[in-house]
Amino acid sequence: MTFRIDNLQYARWSEKIFRQMREGGVDAVHVTIAYHENFRETILNIEAWNRWFERFPDLIFHGQWASDVQQARETGRTAIFFGFQNPSPIEDDIGLVEVLHKLGGRFMQLSYNNQSLLATGCYEAEDPGITRMGKQVIREMNRVGMVIDMSHSADRSTIEAADLSQRPIAITHANPYEWCPALRNKREDVIRAVIENGGMIGFSLYPHHLLDKTECRLESFCTMIADTAERFSAAHLGLGSDLCQDQPDSVVEWMRVGRWSKEIDYGEGSADAPGFPPMPDWFRDNRDFGNIEAGLRKVGFDFDEIAGIMGDNWHRFYDKSFEAAP
Amino acid sequence: MTFRIDNLQYARWSEKIFRQMREGGVDAVHVTIAYHENFRETILNIEAWNRWFERFPDLIFHGQWASDVQQARETGRTAIFFGFQNPSPIEDDIGLVEVLHKLGGRFMQLSYNNQSLLATGCYEAEDPGITRMGKQVIREMNRVGMVIDMSHSADRSTIEAADLSQRPIAITHANPYEWCPALRNKREDVIRAVIENGGMIGFSLYPHHLLDKTECRLESFCTMIADTAERFSAAHLGLGSDLCQDQPDSVVEWMRVGRWSKEIDYGEGSADAPGFPPMPDWFRDNRDFGNIEAGLRKVGFDFDEIAGIMGDNWHRFYDKSFEAAP
Repeated sequence: MTFRIDNLQYARWSEKIFRQMREGGVDAVHVTIAYHENFRETILNIEAWNRWFERFPDLIFHGQWASDVQQARETGRTAIFFGFQNPSPIEDDIGLVEVLHKLGGRFMQLSYNNQSLLATGCYEAEDPGITRMGKQVIREMNRVGMVIDMSHSADRSTIEAADLSQRPIAITHANPYEWCPALRNKREDVIRAVIENGGMIGFSLYPHHLLDKTECRLESFCTMIADTAERFSAAHLGLGSDLCQDQPDSVVEWMRVGRWSKEIDYGEGSADAPGFPPMPDWFRDNRDFGNIEAGLRKVGFDFDEIAGIMGDNWHRFYDKSFEAAP
Repeated sequence: MTFRIDNLQYARWSEKIFRQMREGGVDAVHVTIAYHENFRETILNIEAWNRWFERFPDLIFHGQWASDVQQARETGRTAIFFGFQNPSPIEDDIGLVEVLHKLGGRFMQLSYNNQSLLATGCYEAEDPGITRMGKQVIREMNRVGMVIDMSHSADRSTIEAADLSQRPIAITHANPYEWCPALRNKREDVIRAVIENGGMIGFSLYPHHLLDKTECRLESFCTMIADTAERFSAAHLGLGSDLCQDQPDSVVEWMRVGRWSKEIDYGEGSADAPGFPPMPDWFRDNRDFGNIEAGLRKVGFDFDEIAGIMGDNWHRFYDKSFEAAP
């Protein structure tokens, strides 16, 4: 079986987008349901998803386990898995890890750009690694089956998380720093720590993470994946498009500034270009995964490798990650 | 005028204690109203204080400005000032600094033992200093008139806070590490950074911060104050007793563990002695400030210095700290 999984999207959800998921043959999407939301606000976002599930049962349903990807394929729908880009949903309360896992939380970043109670974000000047609370929360996430995601974390924190965690961790959406030197992209030793501990890297299509941004060529993107596969292993690679389709620019401001600053922080943008950058023309939305599949074929991947990168690797990872530890 | 101010208490409040404040001639007390409480929980604690104020208007009232210390003296009552030992009441929301100042919040620690969103706590293995959000919040606290308290913070974070802050900061309750090498006590360069930037040190009577703990002698405590005055300046010294009178041991567990760990953390205690240690016999409660005053006289302080340490220094500090920046 070959699945198609996008392991990170944060679109302005609509029937149109759910239909595009079906057109693109996407079996599962890991969607962000919290950037800076606290517990109660995260619950509101879960309620909003419950309403989408109720309205469009023929297109989407709430995915909780690896088997739901299979079920999605069999019933011609897309399984929606929940994740948090920040530990804000657990606030300062380790007990909320289990509560949120029960409600479907499957990925949680230990930090988002800034220092959190658990780990350091990639925009801080210094990175002291995993905190006292962070060590406790990693153990709890391991226990209940919530995946540690370090996409927006700083290097040392990421390497320590990969080493401390008893279960494989993930970088759901980022690219190698060597290919595109954005602060958010990942240096070789970081990628190695994640993969050597059994983890996954999801390649991002967010233009700020791409060489030449919106102008990035498909061939360059696929060659970067081939280089990463050669250096590490194709079996630990997947996609995490970071597709923010149809979002107004106010949303990228919320992502960057949340409530932590009274000043605007432009993050990867600038005062001249504060909003979402346009996507590359070969990946506009969920209908374009076929372009990436063709691109991977062109740079020499074989059938199994392509199946792995397009979804089977994430599916295998889901299978060993979402259930409680034995 | 000589005032008597205790700049840190967290007792299990009762009519008995308020009467003891009056017996001890205490004009003002800075009370802790949050350890790990979030915004909403802090509001509940304010509501509880509003009920105390309503029930005992002849003993206590809500202190907001330096002039309230004068008013307390004139009306024979004790002014109660609010503070937080953790930034948990502002959660991740810089806008809550102004809201909480309006409700009477006058001191806020940037961290409590652990890493916070703003700064590092004294029990973390490493201290990267003030975070991105911390720098913003320091500016906002300066603007509205909320004092930065670094009592439970790590060394580098404290020194950076003293330097970054445009207004003097405080260590409301701690002693010199040289005298009693507890992790919570402060090294010389930390004390220097706070005092050289115009700030205040409040000496603690919590037994874990005292040489020989419960057995500490009054003379040793007062000699330590004299040494500190000689090295720095008597004008920047005061008291912050950390009196936790009548609290059950469950409260010290809340202070130490909050909700961040599923394991017990004994902090300054141990598995054998997990609870509150008994106070030294010369400082049992609010009635014993006279003992300290006599002890200060014995080690050679003059009248003005004693008046300063017993309350006038804090009063002067309140006067320049609690109003909005010009």
